[in-house]
Amino acid sequence: MTITITAFERSPDGGKGLARDTRVRWALEEVGQAYEVRLVSFDAMKAPAHLALHPFGQIPTYEEGDLALFETGAIVFHIAERYPGLLPQDANARARAITWMFAAVNTVEPPILEFANAKLLEGDKPWAKERMPLVADRVRDRLKQLSARLGEADWLDGAFTAGDLMMVSVLLRLRSSGILDEFPNLAAYVARGEARPAYMRAFDAQLAVNTGKPPIS
Amino acid sequence: MTITITAFERSPDGGKGLARDTRVRWALEEVGQAYEVRLVSFDAMKAPAHLALHPFGQIPTYEEGDLALFETGAIVFHIAERYPGLLPQDANARARAITWMFAAVNTVEPPILEFANAKLLEGDKPWAKERMPLVADRVRDRLKQLSARLGEADWLDGAFTAGDLMMVSVLLRLRSSGILDEFPNLAAYVARGEARPAYMRAFDAQLAVNTGKPPIS
Repeated sequence: MTITITAFERSPDGGKGLARDTRVRWALEEVGQAYEVRLVSFDAMKAPAHLALHPFGQIPTYEEGDLALFETGAIVFHIAERYPGLLPQDANARARAITWMFAAVNTVEPPILEFANAKLLEGDKPWAKERMPLVADRVRDRLKQLSARLGEADWLDGAFTAGDLMMVSVLLRLRSSGILDEFPNLAAYVARGEARPAYMRAFDAQLAVNTGKPPIS
Repeated sequence: MTITITAFERSPDGGKGLARDTRVRWALEEVGQAYEVRLVSFDAMKAPAHLALHPFGQIPTYEEGDLALFETGAIVFHIAERYPGLLPQDANARARAITWMFAAVNTVEPPILEFANAKLLEGDKPWAKERMPLVADRVRDRLKQLSARLGEADWLDGAFTAGDLMMVSVLLRLRSSGILDEFPNLAAYVARGEARPAYMRAFDAQLAVNTGKPPIS
């Protein structure tokens, strides 16, 4: 059955890999599954046809035969469960990999989202300058704990898993802020993720949509 | 094997069910599994022994034989996968239930966390009064979409699942704000969750820890 995902017709980041379809593309590339992409405009995302697929009017979605899913973490998990390559066979190691998936989206991403909102939605407010350092420190508090746990390891728990895929994707959002570079082991961890051939193919594919040029790799 | 979870020695909410161990207790009650609780103080949560279990120094954790997990969503998912009662048998319905688990923690909870932080961490800042309505409106935007999707249904996708357990738990945090009552179908949805015998047993158990009185039901 054909797998079809949705992605921005024009990504707000212009193709820097921060739109969430990149996470799903990456997962599909890791497990070697071909997929098709349906591009949606901002207007179409809020229209009934797309809202039927995604109640929050966002991308990506995932369609495969009768199955329709939304929510990036759930889509990545579905791919990881269905095809080998993203979750360990051992039951306990598998449960720990899933733990890192949830930790990425529910513990590490919320302060990063708040930091992004502080710039994007409140950057022009009178409190922006004084508030920004507070919000940045909340991100640092989490990264400090994550950095301590990762230590000198390559990945969060043994071999690369869907947990690392999600965590690297979440951390990538921080690159332009410079905060990531304050934690050299986390910066190296993210770089290791970006160096994976599957990530590079996913990145090139989403960039091609946004530049109108064919993928370069 | 005995299941042991951790919970606050003294919950910041005094036992109103908002600490995250309530979500795990609820899941265990739904599937009828007995569990033990190890209470941890705020100091102990930041000490090496607890950080080895939970890198972000929080509760709850979950231990069962050789397995040690943290992160509420992952623990609830582990329980749902291991014992019948929280995930549908049908593969597609199961994937959709997992989608709602991720939607609860990654789409609905982040604006609610931001709203909570605006009060808890920035309530005394000069911008608090002007900023609060902006943050509340971001919560309303999400609830409006969730409310539209739920419609007149009892649960998000057919029978009650771990997705509803997580979503109700996330929405419960809004009760004291009054925002939940602006969406009558969501308020009724949360009330349906709270009326489940398993939720009531979980609530009573966490309340008993915080009042020092034995559970009342």
